[in-house]
Amino acid sequence: MSSKSWEDIVQEKRNERAKRIEHHLKGAITDEEREKSESILNIDHIHDLSIPLASGKLSANDVLSSYIRRAVEAHQQTNCLTEVFFEDALKDAARLDEHFQRHGTLIGPLHGVPVTLKDQFDVKGFDSTIGYVARAFHPAQEDSVLVKILRDLGAIILAKTNLPQSIMWCETDNPLWGLTVNPLNAAYTPGGSTGGEGALLALHGSLLGWGTDIGGSIRIPSHMNGLWGLKPTSSRLPYQGLQVSTDGQGHVPSSVGPMARSLSTLVTTMQAIIGRKPWLLDPNVTPMPWQLEVFENVQSRPITVGLLTDDGVVKVHPPIERALREVAAKLEAAGHEIVLWNNAGHADLIAIQDLFYSSDGGEDVRREVQAGGEPFIPHVNALINREQAISVYEYWQLNKRKVAAQQAYNKKWNDTIGPSGRPVDVLLMPTMPHVAVPHRSCRWVGYTKVWNVLDYAAVTFPAGKVNARLDQRPKEAYEPRNDLDAWNRALYDCETMDNHPIGLQLVGRRFEEEKVLGVAAVIEKLTQA
Amino acid sequence: MSSKSWEDIVQEKRNERAKRIEHHLKGAITDEEREKSESILNIDHIHDLSIPLASGKLSANDVLSSYIRRAVEAHQQTNCLTEVFFEDALKDAARLDEHFQRHGTLIGPLHGVPVTLKDQFDVKGFDSTIGYVARAFHPAQEDSVLVKILRDLGAIILAKTNLPQSIMWCETDNPLWGLTVNPLNAAYTPGGSTGGEGALLALHGSLLGWGTDIGGSIRIPSHMNGLWGLKPTSSRLPYQGLQVSTDGQGHVPSSVGPMARSLSTLVTTMQAIIGRKPWLLDPNVTPMPWQLEVFENVQSRPITVGLLTDDGVVKVHPPIERALREVAAKLEAAGHEIVLWNNAGHADLIAIQDLFYSSDGGEDVRREVQAGGEPFIPHVNALINREQAISVYEYWQLNKRKVAAQQAYNKKWNDTIGPSGRPVDVLLMPTMPHVAVPHRSCRWVGYTKVWNVLDYAAVTFPAGKVNARLDQRPKEAYEPRNDLDAWNRALYDCETMDNHPIGLQLVGRRFEEEKVLGVAAVIEKLTQA
Repeated sequence: MSSKSWEDIVQEKRNERAKRIEHHLKGAITDEEREKSESILNIDHIHDLSIPLASGKLSANDVLSSYIRRAVEAHQQTNCLTEVFFEDALKDAARLDEHFQRHGTLIGPLHGVPVTLKDQFDVKGFDSTIGYVARAFHPAQEDSVLVKILRDLGAIILAKTNLPQSIMWCETDNPLWGLTVNPLNAAYTPGGSTGGEGALLALHGSLLGWGTDIGGSIRIPSHMNGLWGLKPTSSRLPYQGLQVSTDGQGHVPSSVGPMARSLSTLVTTMQAIIGRKPWLLDPNVTPMPWQLEVFENVQSRPITVGLLTDDGVVKVHPPIERALREVAAKLEAAGHEIVLWNNAGHADLIAIQDLFYSSDGGEDVRREVQAGGEPFIPHVNALINREQAISVYEYWQLNKRKVAAQQAYNKKWNDTIGPSGRPVDVLLMPTMPHVAVPHRSCRWVGYTKVWNVLDYAAVTFPAGKVNARLDQRPKEAYEPRNDLDAWNRALYDCETMDNHPIGLQLVGRRFEEEKVLGVAAVIEKLTQA
Repeated sequence: MSSKSWEDIVQEKRNERAKRIEHHLKGAITDEEREKSESILNIDHIHDLSIPLASGKLSANDVLSSYIRRAVEAHQQTNCLTEVFFEDALKDAARLDEHFQRHGTLIGPLHGVPVTLKDQFDVKGFDSTIGYVARAFHPAQEDSVLVKILRDLGAIILAKTNLPQSIMWCETDNPLWGLTVNPLNAAYTPGGSTGGEGALLALHGSLLGWGTDIGGSIRIPSHMNGLWGLKPTSSRLPYQGLQVSTDGQGHVPSSVGPMARSLSTLVTTMQAIIGRKPWLLDPNVTPMPWQLEVFENVQSRPITVGLLTDDGVVKVHPPIERALREVAAKLEAAGHEIVLWNNAGHADLIAIQDLFYSSDGGEDVRREVQAGGEPFIPHVNALINREQAISVYEYWQLNKRKVAAQQAYNKKWNDTIGPSGRPVDVLLMPTMPHVAVPHRSCRWVGYTKVWNVLDYAAVTFPAGKVNARLDQRPKEAYEPRNDLDAWNRALYDCETMDNHPIGLQLVGRRFEEEKVLGVAAVIEKLTQA
């Protein structure tokens, strides 16, 4: 044990961060430089970045310098960064530029792409704190598998980003790094647990972000920040070399996935990473190639979409229901089929998942926090004291119950047939019952977490914004169904929420990443048209 | 609770079985009939059976009647059957024959193939006792997914077969159904836990058998009975609708797999089942098509084989080492590459697996046995009292340790390169340190169980027999390494073991079923040449 107080460690860690950032605050830039920088930062698609890089119009250093400057600004605004390795990133950019000058080619499909990581991914020589004081100043010995692959593909890793204490929360706050705020309103959360990424990407301080999702942690900040975020089936991408809380609880698995400002960036990234056969490096990745034909096929035929508007527990706010109905109407108008999808099975799946989270009686999180000596944030305090630990025998019974619920949901999917006679391709539904809300207001992640216990593929995509004029609270009286529903209803305020992004969710069955991304492409075309 | 004693239930259950068999004991057959029957029973390949069925030379009823007669004889000799549904099977055969008469075609690739199942697979209307008295007279409400697919493919399910109390043993005995004996020597075990299948298949009482394997339970009886047995990666085939002990313990998963007298029967079966997309029926099956190109590719090029002769704990008996060296020599002579493979990591993997088995302190098995009131068999009694239950937190730490060990083994595989510079395709190694042994003598399954905790693909194939002349115990003094090694050495007796089959094991990485079967095909050709 260190003799230092937890406050000392926090101070030291934050000073270290400040010092690493400080160096990059220096030096004014000309208007011309700023203009070039803006145009770089407005590139949302990897392929649009690769073209000027491949022609030599832009250098990796041009790109990275712009992103570093913007990342610092984003951090100053939202407190989104944790570990910062700009110096190493600049060396990487120089190496890439040297390669390009020598060979005239890009090093790989992610050549020069600025990438950031939630503070869970091991990067050699830097901490993976996951927001715990006790993990500060314990640098990783090796890059995580995903980081290795990203580097091999030419990506440049510039920083890690903030997350909540314990990771098990849909907001972003911890005593070590502090609170991350929403780019549009500092009194609001950017969501979580991958909240640092959400804020940073929204402010164009990174082009490609990486998070993890065990209850919505990629999809929720994507939704709140107008981003695309993919939660793949858990064994599709490598988790080796990631730190996580409740590690070893494998029955409701956490997924690694990408976040970005464009769908094409997600697709390029998935295809590139899977093309490197990550299963050879991490034995818990399923050896399944990228299925381009599935991605393309679903874009070339009428699709059948199950529409879930309400999970029966917490009714969504008006702008979310409006966005949902708009997308559904566009799909129908384009000749696709909409089938109403009910919430049967959801309550049971959520109950099972909550029991898994607390099956150790909170011991894992309690040990981590107590090892550092910092206080528990209120949400975590409630979480770890929610239930007594169960026995391993009971844990097995819980897992049997989970498998039975998975089988029942699969049967539901098989049994739902559209009027055309075709099975349901994907589900369209909300990501959350609300858009961004004030800090410490998020309470219901039922719309996202069911897909973790089922381990289905899900993508959140931007589907418009709150419009205070269109999204007035309905005048009719409403009897809340329960405390959570009442809480959510009270949160609604279309004036302060005005202009906040809305992200909807597309859900496919296990390993249907290509399919949900393909349907997302269909919707993207319809929405842009 | 039933007011009947456990002995009453056992008697009732055995009477029921006897009655269902009795009917099929009647009637002598002519020499000509017997000759035809023999020729049917000597067909080991599904495709060799499909040809006369497709031409109308044989009917499904011809095939099934022969198999029923032989299954009854096999049962009388070895006590291998549990649930018997010959009457339903005869109706199925009649239905298939009617289909053929009407359409002139077979109903599917397994048309008329007689299939038997370890007493774990739910078959509607019959018990899945898994050897527990408490599960007698609780018929399944529905067919398991695999049974549904087999029926769709045209297979005829005729009976279920014996297994040990708790399933967690490599022999076959339980108080409900009694002891199953080795076809070659009633004082010897046929292995386990899929021991009833092993005995029945060896005696040609079934063409295709199904077992499960969480420590060697498909491979061990295959080895002891001269059969081919495949333990796939656990999520390759559907487990939905199987009963299993320690159900819910998913971290060292049990695999479903086929056993047969020929490699081609395994291949035909795997291809046919996977062709039916079992992942749509069981959400825990990985949606991975049958990869014919992998199966064929590995047969068309030089392969690199890692050779493991000794796991460092229990040295194998002379005939097993001889068989192993013979196969390796043939591979080398044919231009393939042999790389020595060491046992690094095996001890740790085995220790982890044993801790998982006993992590509930034996509660699961104890409850099942106590609910029936029957005695514990000695092996099970030792198993359930081996360790105290651990906490869920400790269970998570154990799972982390498992994942780290899996990652280390994967690194070992990546780091082992043959002189040709090619990576290792598969491992060649023993299945057990001995062939069939007297009942209650099996103590070491370290050669098989490592592949369960790693969840790798493994196939056991026949590789000759003990030859008392060639396989004399070495004259040199031998200092046993430990009690298990001393026990194993004392078991060796080349006179009583003479002519018992030897099965060796081929191991591939996760989801490499096509590859291990392809290499098995290479070896089959070399061995027959």
